[in-house]
Amino acid sequence: MTALTHFNQSGEAHMVDVGEKAITQRTAVTEGYIEMQPSTLKLIVDGGHKKGDVLAIARIAGIMASKKTADLIPLCHPLPLTHVEIKLSAEIDSNRIRCQTTVKTNGQTGVEMEALNATQIALLTIYDMCKAVDRGMVIQSVRLLEKDGGKSGHWLRNQN
Amino acid sequence: MTALTHFNQSGEAHMVDVGEKAITQRTAVTEGYIEMQPSTLKLIVDGGHKKGDVLAIARIAGIMASKKTADLIPLCHPLPLTHVEIKLSAEIDSNRIRCQTTVKTNGQTGVEMEALNATQIALLTIYDMCKAVDRGMVIQSVRLLEKDGGKSGHWLRNQN
Amino acid sequence: MTALTHFNQSGEAHMVDVGEKAITQRTAVTEGYIEMQPSTLKLIVDGGHKKGDVLAIARIAGIMASKKTADLIPLCHPLPLTHVEIKLSAEIDSNRIRCQTTVKTNGQTGVEMEALNATQIALLTIYDMCKAVDRGMVIQSVRLLEKDGGKSGHWLRNQN
Amino acid sequence: MTALTHFNQSGEAHMVDVGEKAITQRTAVTEGYIEMQPSTLKLIVDGGHKKGDVLAIARIAGIMASKKTADLIPLCHPLPLTHVEIKLSAEIDSNRIRCQTTVKTNGQTGVEMEALNATQIALLTIYDMCKAVDRGMVIQSVRLLEKDGGKSGHWLRNQN
Amino acid sequence: MTALTHFNQSGEAHMVDVGEKAITQRTAVTEGYIEMQPSTLKLIVDGGHKKGDVLAIARIAGIMASKKTADLIPLCHPLPLTHVEIKLSAEIDSNRIRCQTTVKTNGQTGVEMEALNATQIALLTIYDMCKAVDRGMVIQSVRLLEKDGGKSGHWLRNQN
Amino acid sequence: MTALTHFNQSGEAHMVDVGEKAITQRTAVTEGYIEMQPSTLKLIVDGGHKKGDVLAIARIAGIMASKKTADLIPLCHPLPLTHVEIKLSAEIDSNRIRCQTTVKTNGQTGVEMEALNATQIALLTIYDMCKAVDRGMVIQSVRLLEKDGGKSGHWLRNQN
Repeated sequence: MTALTHFNQSGEAHMVDVGEKAITQRTAVTEGYIEMQPSTLKLIVDGGHKKGDVLAIARIAGIMASKKTADLIPLCHPLPLTHVEIKLSAEIDSNRIRCQTTVKTNGQTGVEMEALNATQIALLTIYDMCKAVDRGMVIQSVRLLEKDGGKSGHWLRNQN
Repeated sequence: MTALTHFNQSGEAHMVDVGEKAITQRTAVTEGYIEMQPSTLKLIVDGGHKKGDVLAIARIAGIMASKKTADLIPLCHPLPLTHVEIKLSAEIDSNRIRCQTTVKTNGQTGVEMEALNATQIALLTIYDMCKAVDRGMVIQSVRLLEKDGGKSGHWLRNQN
Repeated sequence: MTALTHFNQSGEAHMVDVGEKAITQRTAVTEGYIEMQPSTLKLIVDGGHKKGDVLAIARIAGIMASKKTADLIPLCHPLPLTHVEIKLSAEIDSNRIRCQTTVKTNGQTGVEMEALNATQIALLTIYDMCKAVDRGMVIQSVRLLEKDGGKSGHWLRNQN
Repeated sequence: MTALTHFNQSGEAHMVDVGEKAITQRTAVTEGYIEMQPSTLKLIVDGGHKKGDVLAIARIAGIMASKKTADLIPLCHPLPLTHVEIKLSAEIDSNRIRCQTTVKTNGQTGVEMEALNATQIALLTIYDMCKAVDRGMVIQSVRLLEKDGGKSGHWLRNQN
Repeated sequence: MTALTHFNQSGEAHMVDVGEKAITQRTAVTEGYIEMQPSTLKLIVDGGHKKGDVLAIARIAGIMASKKTADLIPLCHPLPLTHVEIKLSAEIDSNRIRCQTTVKTNGQTGVEMEALNATQIALLTIYDMCKAVDRGMVIQSVRLLEKDGGKSGHWLRNQN
Repeated sequence: MTALTHFNQSGEAHMVDVGEKAITQRTAVTEGYIEMQPSTLKLIVDGGHKKGDVLAIARIAGIMASKKTADLIPLCHPLPLTHVEIKLSAEIDSNRIRCQTTVKTNGQTGVEMEALNATQIALLTIYDMCKAVDRGMVIQSVRLLEKDGGKSGHWLRNQN
């Protein structure tokens, strides 16, 4: 037997039965970063007034990706989402952009995966749009900051 | 005007015209890590003999994700892939798992995005399968190691 | 600040929070047209007795498209649908086919987008199947006729 | 008029209106087989201790496919699933592998289609992975064993 | 028999065999409009300097949709695209926004469907983002302007 | 080491490298059956003159599914298809419908999986449309009849 719930008693992967869990409001907040050359960051920030700037496109890509999480993560339950918000902010001194994602639903399982996936794809979209000038960009510290709802209740990073 | 090729001369996003580029063999190698509690890593490693172990599922998720990259990244060209390989290895001393992905195609654009996306989704699948015991896991250092093919030719991290 | 609800107070796009909205029965009815050469319309109508006629295929394409609306429209909430019905009728005197779509769900947001998307894809499928004989066909007047449910209640075209 | 509910009174296909049906717990159990050469079965069974064995991958493919059923079956309602379990067992004497799938949801329609689709794709994934050594494999007897929930209640094969 | 190539000699739908057709450069240019209240158009135009403006999001939605055309249109061949460009311009005097899409590929079939689909989804995304203030918006005149490549060669609207 | 090419030398699943294989014309022909009550078969056959008959819809579902094969089968290479044809015929004496699918492409790998997947989904769509009157239907004998192209050349069932 295993302590990992995604395996049944025979040690085989399954989509965990959540049918008996209560429907509660679920929230997840995640963050992540993409580090780059100062000149790349400048290009992105300076483009902020244009019609199709990098951060606006990354935000849309992240929101759309959140809706495909169950298509990508094998044992993830499909969930209708009620709210997705992505904040992208340039941290000039650290030569990086920070992505913070909030996802909510009313459901039987949490939305951590949806928020992490949205964060990753928003950052990867920034990579895509800037890779012609900076192939060395690195995605860092993609992680859960906070979650709420469900039997396990509230969880906040650094309080555990 | 902008130096970013994903915007046209009016500053609007477009899918870059690659129709005149030569079809060459393209390769990309990427890596990334997921850090976790020692006890979580032990659970994964000990499960390695089971019928549905965590790393095997993460590998499949990453390979499948590579095929959906153009669905997720807005300005990414759709490409048929000729090869995808994902290596997942436990680094016990660092309390983390390393993912290395190799993607190849014969095409007019590179496969860096496909390899980065596969790496991210493989790591995120590990998160999903272990989150019930370790919500604090962090995805780190997702980045391109090497690419080859196309007009820009060979690129190797740390030699630029 | 903007009057458009798809942007937050910072002017950034988000998927609007509908978590507090009541679950009510939602209905949307839409219409649209495709205009064509009289000879093209005749081909479609005469094929109506065949095993795989144009309108039957367009109807299926529209129904299937309604289920993918949230994949296509960036800020659209994913919704399970409870009913989709597409009526396609030849209007011989106007050299066009009319598409009327009804979509229903029980949910926190409306189904206007699902009905409009189904109408558009049904019409576009007709274009695809007939384009070899009539490239000049035009899709016209895709619009909402009626909606019901939710806080804004009943809406009927030409009564507003 | 037709006795098939997927057609309306005009004989046109539609997605049946289930909006008034009660939300109940739905379960479906299906089975199917893939027949092969004894040597192929031996390869699969002997590989069972490896990191990426055939049956583990087929199981994942089946689970993921269950989530895409409404994308594939034109008039199938989209449903969030609460549980998916796939058992794959080698039947050495019959030179075949048996797949049994259980799917559950709380919803307005049943999950027979999701369970049948998961079974088919799990078996087809076995075909894919072994076709280089055995092109002649045959998928057999994909069928519903049992369903529960909804107005029609409990159904068990061979008791009807 | 039918004159529509999407049906075979038995009158059954099929995906036409293009295997013997030459690979040539294919281009399609399409247009379409969305009509709205003057006040709605003003909201869109005034938002043009914001971080997530309506037209930038519609442009991205259209580009992404072009890549899903073969998923939506039943008998459409899947094609890798080499270029997609969407121009959205406000026509103040006509109270509408015009969308012009250009799609290119090197392939055995044309890209008219991809360009029409991108146009439709870009316009529908504008509808989605403004529907809370203007449910009555109408999508008009979605049509092919020009195509090139393949056996049928160059086609220009109004010269036929 | 394993004799199954979908595993590398470490026994881990990968998408096989086909980059060096020649591009040749590939064909696959598959078949499958769905058995049912005589009364169900009669309903389907009698509906054959209606606007949205069962077999026409199953045919479309099968063609559309062929385009999604690489999304469903984990290690399957994505391929553009050049031709898909599905024949559905009622075999009254055997109380079943036969599905025969032909798929073609010019590519580096074969199209057996696409043809088998199309056959399975066409049959499953028949199940869906008739399940309200006949839950006991069984899908039988889904298998490859013939393939051509590639290094392994021509293969015909019962000649091996």
